[in-house]
Amino acid sequence: MGLRTVVVGTGSCIPPRRVANEELAGREFFGPDGRRIDKPGDQVVAQFQSITGIRERRWAGDDQVASDLAVLAARDALDSSGVDPESLDALIVAHNFGDVRHGTRNSDLVPALASRVKAQLKITAPRTAAFDLIFGCPGWLQGVLQCDAMIRAGDAKRALVIGAETLSRVSDPHDRDSLIYADGAGAVILEAREGEAGILGHAVRSDAIDHSTMLTMGPSYKDEVFLEAIFLKMEGRKLYRYALQTVAGAIADALERSGVALADVKKVLIHQANGKMDEAILQALYEREGRTPPADVMPMTIGWLGNSSVATVPTLLDLLLKGRLEGHSAGAGDVLVLASVGAGMNVNAAVYRLP
Amino acid sequence: MGLRTVVVGTGSCIPPRRVANEELAGREFFGPDGRRIDKPGDQVVAQFQSITGIRERRWAGDDQVASDLAVLAARDALDSSGVDPESLDALIVAHNFGDVRHGTRNSDLVPALASRVKAQLKITAPRTAAFDLIFGCPGWLQGVLQCDAMIRAGDAKRALVIGAETLSRVSDPHDRDSLIYADGAGAVILEAREGEAGILGHAVRSDAIDHSTMLTMGPSYKDEVFLEAIFLKMEGRKLYRYALQTVAGAIADALERSGVALADVKKVLIHQANGKMDEAILQALYEREGRTPPADVMPMTIGWLGNSSVATVPTLLDLLLKGRLEGHSAGAGDVLVLASVGAGMNVNAAVYRLP
Repeated sequence: MGLRTVVVGTGSCIPPRRVANEELAGREFFGPDGRRIDKPGDQVVAQFQSITGIRERRWAGDDQVASDLAVLAARDALDSSGVDPESLDALIVAHNFGDVRHGTRNSDLVPALASRVKAQLKITAPRTAAFDLIFGCPGWLQGVLQCDAMIRAGDAKRALVIGAETLSRVSDPHDRDSLIYADGAGAVILEAREGEAGILGHAVRSDAIDHSTMLTMGPSYKDEVFLEAIFLKMEGRKLYRYALQTVAGAIADALERSGVALADVKKVLIHQANGKMDEAILQALYEREGRTPPADVMPMTIGWLGNSSVATVPTLLDLLLKGRLEGHSAGAGDVLVLASVGAGMNVNAAVYRLP
Repeated sequence: MGLRTVVVGTGSCIPPRRVANEELAGREFFGPDGRRIDKPGDQVVAQFQSITGIRERRWAGDDQVASDLAVLAARDALDSSGVDPESLDALIVAHNFGDVRHGTRNSDLVPALASRVKAQLKITAPRTAAFDLIFGCPGWLQGVLQCDAMIRAGDAKRALVIGAETLSRVSDPHDRDSLIYADGAGAVILEAREGEAGILGHAVRSDAIDHSTMLTMGPSYKDEVFLEAIFLKMEGRKLYRYALQTVAGAIADALERSGVALADVKKVLIHQANGKMDEAILQALYEREGRTPPADVMPMTIGWLGNSSVATVPTLLDLLLKGRLEGHSAGAGDVLVLASVGAGMNVNAAVYRLP
């Protein structure tokens, strides 16, 4: 019996600034062709809501950057678990844009966000290796899987893995897709333990040749406004199709490697990218076994939190384990699936049994 | 006897554009206080050369970005080793600024550079997990250590780890420190093997509280020129002192964990940050045992390649193993030390026995 990776603490930062769809209805929206969307703003946001399920999202305060949100999530995880920050062997921050200060469009990642977080947490131990990992929206889960490898290889006993993002700073206000994006951070503390609980198995896939351009940086759709600035741009339809084709399979692979039957899964926590897409992925997963998804197997936060990239899955996990997701609970022995999909394109999935 | 990580291929990209110190002597240099350096340009660069040992550096072509250099280094490693790119389980790119196109100041890291490299290498295998790692200049070696953990944990059998950077795109032309920075890329292919050869041990340290501001992004010293742009800024003296205090100790730790005596080390490959600093680190390492460094134990490339961040150590390794460093050679059974220091601040060291 070898070592397994157990979650001993979780935390999240849900920024206080709530931005409802109505607040964004006054924006001028343009298409990828540069043509103005010839529809009243309230109709644009109503249609958006019916497709994505997003009613409102959170934005960071003007004085905050991604590493600040990361610190708040990390403190929550440390404080609520009582883990001594000086006992950490690794501190990994997943993100995709570094720190982007309000009013600028510059991604700043020197030093790595993990160094900024370590400094703000006042961790003095030199052995807490602090680095960042970039893997699109699945970056946080990939950081967890890296720590899992370090733990099983004997390179680390305890680690903090944070996903933090301020998508509001890199989204083009003239692109309807900007309505999807949100800010936030989530964190877990992982620990090496003997026993039956912990990460049981995982699957990862990267598809690049025909997929690396589905989420990229590009100019504003109203391009006379921001000259050099680049914004997150999405080929939404292709991305939707890709996710439907790959995520269920990755989850099935991770379950098979874990020796866990789909029927024994208590909750499926999927990256909150788009409500309908997540429903379709769940449907596809259960259809592989000729079944329909059980009620309440997939907690969702997208309606009120939007898509905060790397932050969505750890935030879901934190809320679930702390009993803050209405109608959802999980306890000792329960099996969770964590899965994500995003820029790269990349997909990952992990199967986790609660201690 | 467990699995060890062996280097089965190396490659590098040394950009063709040579930029001699004389070519930069015409720049207007300013101090951190915004005051113009009251000294002729040729004196500034002469003094710079005497301190750092840098005579010239390489810059990427105007049509290249960091991921392009990464692809060239990766192709060199794949072609010269004959390894099938479709056989890779992981592809990691270490960098600190993403792709910064010539004439812009925007860091672009969506999708991750690893995805761009995988796409350009036309690797179709979905299992080649492609992600980026950010850890300052020690990022490439940290990527190697992550793969080493994945290999020892059984998560990967073969991996490509690349360090690629275009510091010329993020350096402030009005800051004398910009003379240090260069562009380049280096790559290794790692493989799981049984036996006495491979990575024998490592050490990593991150110091953040008083150190996270030693290398940061900030405005130009001639700040009326570039309004929003941010550039790599260095507290050179503090950084020098930090490196002297930590790197030799990390190497000593890695040697102890590897069970290798300093006397049995054939070559020490240190991040090419500053010629004098590297000499002082080497001196400190041998002084710990009351010895002086053997002649030719530390190959240097900084004089003609400058400091290309994450690219320096893999480039040194590639040139050494291919017999392209005059006066230096290494063969089967020889022990190498790889070590780096950079933004964070972070330090790492690994001990490697050649198969």
